[in-house]
Amino acid sequence: MPTIIPDIVISRLPIYLRALERLSQEGHEVTSSHELGKRLGISSAQIRKDLSHFGGFGKQGTGYRIPYLKDQLRQVLKVEQDWEIALIGAGDLGNAVARYRGFADRGFRIAYVFDNAPDKVGAHIDDFEVLPMDRLHETIVHNSIRIAMIAVPAEAAQIVADILVEAGIRAILNYAPINLVVPSDVRVQYIDPVIHLQRMTYYLP
Amino acid sequence: MPTIIPDIVISRLPIYLRALERLSQEGHEVTSSHELGKRLGISSAQIRKDLSHFGGFGKQGTGYRIPYLKDQLRQVLKVEQDWEIALIGAGDLGNAVARYRGFADRGFRIAYVFDNAPDKVGAHIDDFEVLPMDRLHETIVHNSIRIAMIAVPAEAAQIVADILVEAGIRAILNYAPINLVVPSDVRVQYIDPVIHLQRMTYYLP
Repeated sequence: MPTIIPDIVISRLPIYLRALERLSQEGHEVTSSHELGKRLGISSAQIRKDLSHFGGFGKQGTGYRIPYLKDQLRQVLKVEQDWEIALIGAGDLGNAVARYRGFADRGFRIAYVFDNAPDKVGAHIDDFEVLPMDRLHETIVHNSIRIAMIAVPAEAAQIVADILVEAGIRAILNYAPINLVVPSDVRVQYIDPVIHLQRMTYYLP
Repeated sequence: MPTIIPDIVISRLPIYLRALERLSQEGHEVTSSHELGKRLGISSAQIRKDLSHFGGFGKQGTGYRIPYLKDQLRQVLKVEQDWEIALIGAGDLGNAVARYRGFADRGFRIAYVFDNAPDKVGAHIDDFEVLPMDRLHETIVHNSIRIAMIAVPAEAAQIVADILVEAGIRAILNYAPINLVVPSDVRVQYIDPVIHLQRMTYYLP
């Protein structure tokens, strides 16, 4: 395995994994770069090239065994087991994220929810008790949490990010519509509905 | 201009546009495929190739004029003006989406919010009055709405999608964690936080 895989290749692997999970749910056992490509709007050559970074996983002419390829991708992406996540923000969005049922079996589990509003701290979202922000740092450090989701208003997001980074968080999923400034060893991804909407308008008459 | 642009190229243009908007906010007037590539983790060759589908927009050696390139991308993506959006679901997530401030100046405006819960219909989310589901079809048809966002529980999402498609919706942004079945002339994009989380775990120690 080469030591450096381009970021753009890594960014496509979760898309492949999700497509494989859907194929599994539909009862398929085997697929091909051609079929994956057709579903994803990516060329089959690109898919074969991406997967070849990790040894290929398939044999010429016989396609990919889906359960095997899923396992291999999960291993590459380090999502064979669940990562504990700290969620910051228990407003409308935080509630929706805490209750989201799409995390199960995909490598993640929200473990702690924080807010600083007196009427939210101590409240329950399903099984979670909302913890006060002054326990954020110690909770992350004590439980070696590495991933956090920010679901606070835009004007509070950078302040929260600073606390998270200081406590040892190295991956942030940001729902707030602002660009976060973090050290270079911290990854940030953005949930930005506009990107997805703009990917569709081109095709509208 | 060639008649068919690959989907994968179109899918990258909103990412370029967002990067250009951020460069503008930081006070830049000019950029290069190299600088864009560095920010986005995409090769500069890929960026030049993508933009060449639309005439290039830049001159060799002088880089891209950011305001011009932004305008051109907005035109290609058809987001120079605001599209009206119907939002279905006024629960936690729907409330968060309706209040999201990231749509402004990026081509979209939530115009109508629907729900079927008696305690939600007639309620206000900021300036929106939540409308009953039995007015969904007529509202979409009468106002020629083409884009909808689904923020209802997973078990209701397909039923809602069917109504939307029947009424003339041709682009759906789906927040529910299920795969929608729609005709081939309807586009669907998914908000899936797991994809973004899985793009970061690879890099965690």
